[in-house]
Amino acid sequence: MFELGVVYRNIERADRATTDALAALGSATVHEAMGRVGLMQPYMRPIFAGAQVSGTAVTVLLHPGDNWMLHVVAEQIQPGDIVVAAVTAGCTDGYFGDLLATSFKARGARALVIDAGVRDVKPLTEMNFPVWSKAISSKGTIKATLGSVNIPVVCAGMSVTPGDVIVADDDGVVVVPRQIAAKTLEAARAREANEGEKRAKLASGILGLDMYKMREPLEKAGLRYID
Amino acid sequence: MFELGVVYRNIERADRATTDALAALGSATVHEAMGRVGLMQPYMRPIFAGAQVSGTAVTVLLHPGDNWMLHVVAEQIQPGDIVVAAVTAGCTDGYFGDLLATSFKARGARALVIDAGVRDVKPLTEMNFPVWSKAISSKGTIKATLGSVNIPVVCAGMSVTPGDVIVADDDGVVVVPRQIAAKTLEAARAREANEGEKRAKLASGILGLDMYKMREPLEKAGLRYID
Amino acid sequence: MFELGVVYRNIERADRATTDALAALGSATVHEAMGRVGLMQPYMRPIFAGAQVSGTAVTVLLHPGDNWMLHVVAEQIQPGDIVVAAVTAGCTDGYFGDLLATSFKARGARALVIDAGVRDVKPLTEMNFPVWSKAISSKGTIKATLGSVNIPVVCAGMSVTPGDVIVADDDGVVVVPRQIAAKTLEAARAREANEGEKRAKLASGILGLDMYKMREPLEKAGLRYID
Amino acid sequence: MFELGVVYRNIERADRATTDALAALGSATVHEAMGRVGLMQPYMRPIFAGAQVSGTAVTVLLHPGDNWMLHVVAEQIQPGDIVVAAVTAGCTDGYFGDLLATSFKARGARALVIDAGVRDVKPLTEMNFPVWSKAISSKGTIKATLGSVNIPVVCAGMSVTPGDVIVADDDGVVVVPRQIAAKTLEAARAREANEGEKRAKLASGILGLDMYKMREPLEKAGLRYID
Amino acid sequence: MFELGVVYRNIERADRATTDALAALGSATVHEAMGRVGLMQPYMRPIFAGAQVSGTAVTVLLHPGDNWMLHVVAEQIQPGDIVVAAVTAGCTDGYFGDLLATSFKARGARALVIDAGVRDVKPLTEMNFPVWSKAISSKGTIKATLGSVNIPVVCAGMSVTPGDVIVADDDGVVVVPRQIAAKTLEAARAREANEGEKRAKLASGILGLDMYKMREPLEKAGLRYID
Amino acid sequence: MFELGVVYRNIERADRATTDALAALGSATVHEAMGRVGLMQPYMRPIFAGAQVSGTAVTVLLHPGDNWMLHVVAEQIQPGDIVVAAVTAGCTDGYFGDLLATSFKARGARALVIDAGVRDVKPLTEMNFPVWSKAISSKGTIKATLGSVNIPVVCAGMSVTPGDVIVADDDGVVVVPRQIAAKTLEAARAREANEGEKRAKLASGILGLDMYKMREPLEKAGLRYID
Repeated sequence: MFELGVVYRNIERADRATTDALAALGSATVHEAMGRVGLMQPYMRPIFAGAQVSGTAVTVLLHPGDNWMLHVVAEQIQPGDIVVAAVTAGCTDGYFGDLLATSFKARGARALVIDAGVRDVKPLTEMNFPVWSKAISSKGTIKATLGSVNIPVVCAGMSVTPGDVIVADDDGVVVVPRQIAAKTLEAARAREANEGEKRAKLASGILGLDMYKMREPLEKAGLRYID
Repeated sequence: MFELGVVYRNIERADRATTDALAALGSATVHEAMGRVGLMQPYMRPIFAGAQVSGTAVTVLLHPGDNWMLHVVAEQIQPGDIVVAAVTAGCTDGYFGDLLATSFKARGARALVIDAGVRDVKPLTEMNFPVWSKAISSKGTIKATLGSVNIPVVCAGMSVTPGDVIVADDDGVVVVPRQIAAKTLEAARAREANEGEKRAKLASGILGLDMYKMREPLEKAGLRYID
Repeated sequence: MFELGVVYRNIERADRATTDALAALGSATVHEAMGRVGLMQPYMRPIFAGAQVSGTAVTVLLHPGDNWMLHVVAEQIQPGDIVVAAVTAGCTDGYFGDLLATSFKARGARALVIDAGVRDVKPLTEMNFPVWSKAISSKGTIKATLGSVNIPVVCAGMSVTPGDVIVADDDGVVVVPRQIAAKTLEAARAREANEGEKRAKLASGILGLDMYKMREPLEKAGLRYID
Repeated sequence: MFELGVVYRNIERADRATTDALAALGSATVHEAMGRVGLMQPYMRPIFAGAQVSGTAVTVLLHPGDNWMLHVVAEQIQPGDIVVAAVTAGCTDGYFGDLLATSFKARGARALVIDAGVRDVKPLTEMNFPVWSKAISSKGTIKATLGSVNIPVVCAGMSVTPGDVIVADDDGVVVVPRQIAAKTLEAARAREANEGEKRAKLASGILGLDMYKMREPLEKAGLRYID
Repeated sequence: MFELGVVYRNIERADRATTDALAALGSATVHEAMGRVGLMQPYMRPIFAGAQVSGTAVTVLLHPGDNWMLHVVAEQIQPGDIVVAAVTAGCTDGYFGDLLATSFKARGARALVIDAGVRDVKPLTEMNFPVWSKAISSKGTIKATLGSVNIPVVCAGMSVTPGDVIVADDDGVVVVPRQIAAKTLEAARAREANEGEKRAKLASGILGLDMYKMREPLEKAGLRYID
Repeated sequence: MFELGVVYRNIERADRATTDALAALGSATVHEAMGRVGLMQPYMRPIFAGAQVSGTAVTVLLHPGDNWMLHVVAEQIQPGDIVVAAVTAGCTDGYFGDLLATSFKARGARALVIDAGVRDVKPLTEMNFPVWSKAISSKGTIKATLGSVNIPVVCAGMSVTPGDVIVADDDGVVVVPRQIAAKTLEAARAREANEGEKRAKLASGILGLDMYKMREPLEKAGLRYID
């Protein structure tokens, strides 16, 4: 809790199979499955289109304009992790570039989610290392002040505990608490189970009004049609 | 006028041939042809690059975080329409995804213009259903409160009357009132008629200063050259 | 200094070879080489991904909603220049489109950097004329008020003197004062010299903590590891 | 409809007594009475606290950085009017200051609502002429391009027809269409009628849960209390 | 953890004397005493100047445009509490006005901190009930969807656990975790202890450079004086 | 030019009498007198209403989250100066509070203009030390990295050279280059000379249309009146 200058080495990660299975469902379905919570603010955007990943969160708390702790967090990465970086105050500096990405990737990281800026967008795209960020900026950072690694952080308006599952794609970034990852996967799969059937019906011209039986509640709510 | 809970089924749509012809001219030329008015605010961005469409507006007024009326408006879509969705207060939630897009497309809609958020960007891109929106967000919505369909709305700062022509491309979204669609098409074509010639001149190195005869008015305005 | 209605025809441009060599280094490296200064605000974004250019600045000061001086600046462009456009107050109008781009290109301009809006994004992309701008907007402009050409301007928070070097890519736009262009090139090259070696080490799994010898200063700063 | 260069001299104003009575009810109550619509975007803020007014709208459409039409609209002001100024594109320039305010006040205007900037905040405060605006800025404007007076406009996201009622206070600006002004006044008064009684109950410690009989619907919705 | 539809009735509140003592120290000193963490984002502003309060947090999670749970949280307020309201997605609606404030005040609440909008600013000011909010807006809300009371929330970028101490004044809103409230009070008092002496020295013309003995470290860092 | 780590001790200040005389004219008049240039971006707001000052600029370039150089600049303040603080990247941290204000005031500073955040708003108001800033924030800063003092900086979009005149009031902040201060004062006075007469005319009901003889140019521009 607001501990500065500490690195937690042992965190309990969400189950690997569960974590990995969540990627395919996508951030929107997972967010719905959790009861429409867990989504980071929509200013978090991918640096290139099409990436869709899930992974276990290792967290890092940074200070404005200081990326020292990104080197510290690199050592704590295990294969299948996604690094989640929060900053103690709003900042758009470019904390992360292709050298750090090379290191993160070598450690097995799948992505970076950072509530600040990133740079080297072109090489990062070429090496296919996805980043969700608040900004893109060449602005470099210093290495002067300690933050922390693997403490609970708030990133883009969402609380992240180390070991939670991160699901990120073109629609945004969702945080699934470790304790409800299995339940969420189940709910997300159930949600998706009959989507194919629904899609076929809608494609054939059947209206959602009929498929979801909305006409009666709409009428009860007072909807009037005027010719 | 601020009617809630009503659906107008019969609207007068702009002439089909006129409407369809406006797409090729693009939002910038059409906006100029109208006297530099009609453009929605520039925060309205396409979810993928390259789409260029025109269509007749069917409108829907939504409440924050509530997409119920999108199912209601689906039934009012006719081939060649573009759905224009306004919200009664600022909201970035993801009101629209691939299921609704499947339904809209089956009804003949060409695009969605929404002053809020959208999700399922990847499948929407794959199915080539263009959306212009204020945000991209996985955040889901509820179905609790009535809005209206086919009433005049304000979308991204611009008044839209059902049946008006919408022209949208990478540069933005323009609203052409139905009554002046034909006149606007004519003016836009006139504007574009000699663009090829102008482009050739400029490409050859002739300056706009000479081509547009600006040197004299600039001098009159007091422009001084200093060597 | 705030001169309105003047066009300076003779400006001292940075050395051509130096200017051209800076493109390959990219905005992030050049910005670092200058001591982490010189970067325009990160809201300046390219209209398409992948462009990476450098050039000598010709500057133009515009008024809100008035692009008259863009025609005046066209005449002052020499091959290898980049036009830098500032506005006397915040404005997102689309000052620049494919006709002006055709003219600028014919004069030898490599890019436009404008603290306002641009339009005709699709044709500009097709003709491969890169623009870094604050906004994309169809909104047209008038030709009524004199600004100036080749006076010092402030563009997106950064001072630009005519003849300075502009380096722009997917990460942003950096301004290198003419007087320090050679020194900056040298420093940027030195910075990049051993990047390949560093990248190889990091890719092999060596940590930045060890490569940069950070463990001792981190310990001195009080970093604690908790198991 | 997007007419430029026209001044409508005869507009139908909302009933004077109805208009004047709406001020005391305030923007929040009036907005509720209309079904939670009619509110301009909340970036519209008063230049000083405490003003609470209502009046009939005379409208003016301006261009970015050009306040010429504010002089034209001055002539159309009648006692009890509020001037509503829209701009064809986003602009924060200071269109209005103490000289224009002196003129507006002499004509009987009660306030200005402008989707742009204002200046001379101190003298305007001293002369007690309230303005709701998007920005405060010393930036002056030119007089070059025609807009229109008393056409329907969109101001801060809300459609305004000349003669509509404007209700503005510290909470924001509401537009009441002329045709429903009487009905809205009635509904607003009904809404306010028992507020005193409610306030007394709540002040005595009675909970809204009980006063509004919410416990049962909350329980039905599934609310659980955990000790 | 993202529990919806629950109300925790028994929370452990920070020590009353400690909580109350923190108000006088102010948000800046308290934030420094915690190691420069704990501050909500600076868009949280008071609706009137001069209020300076501390209190124990009771939390509520709301949905966009829905204030139902504010009535539920009212019942959980104890004298000395401050209500902290988070929303599951960005929203500027006016969730709170003078009736709810009357109820909150009757229950003993000292303030409201809400990551959304508030209305009835004038009566709230008159009854001296301070609110820190993201926006001011007349926009009303509905009562349709369950949130939760007294679960951990993220408000304006900061994690708040029920029972934590909130310190708010003209400079912003700080969250002090319950467990470190006593230690923080001590550190804040120590910090302030010699401020009077420092202030006197600085007022007498002694420079911070000398008082804080900065000349040597500045010189070591390479600072050069040029005459 | 982008020099870091330097302090210029001898700067040429604008003439004292001229500088002091500009305060009474206000930012709007001075900005007009310069040809509508020189205004900082309108997000620069005073921390309390009513202050109206002018002074000679001493400048300081800061890094994000680092206020070390504010102590360095304090020593360079002479009576009648206004400190102008720029930051190398966007930052809202609270760089300045009541202790620094005490020191600045003791040195004779009249105000601070800072393109970042400020704190201790209440004591600053009580000691009547005006600040124009981008944000208000309790967030503290570190003292780790050298910036510079009395180099040319860009503050809120405007170039400031040490010794320039700053004019600031409720409407914004204007920069008058030292070389044109006398000329600007003269022009501003001329501008204001007949304002009293104009105000009296307008107050008597005479329209700007007539006083400024606008009817003919409006008619020529095509303005049409419709009854």
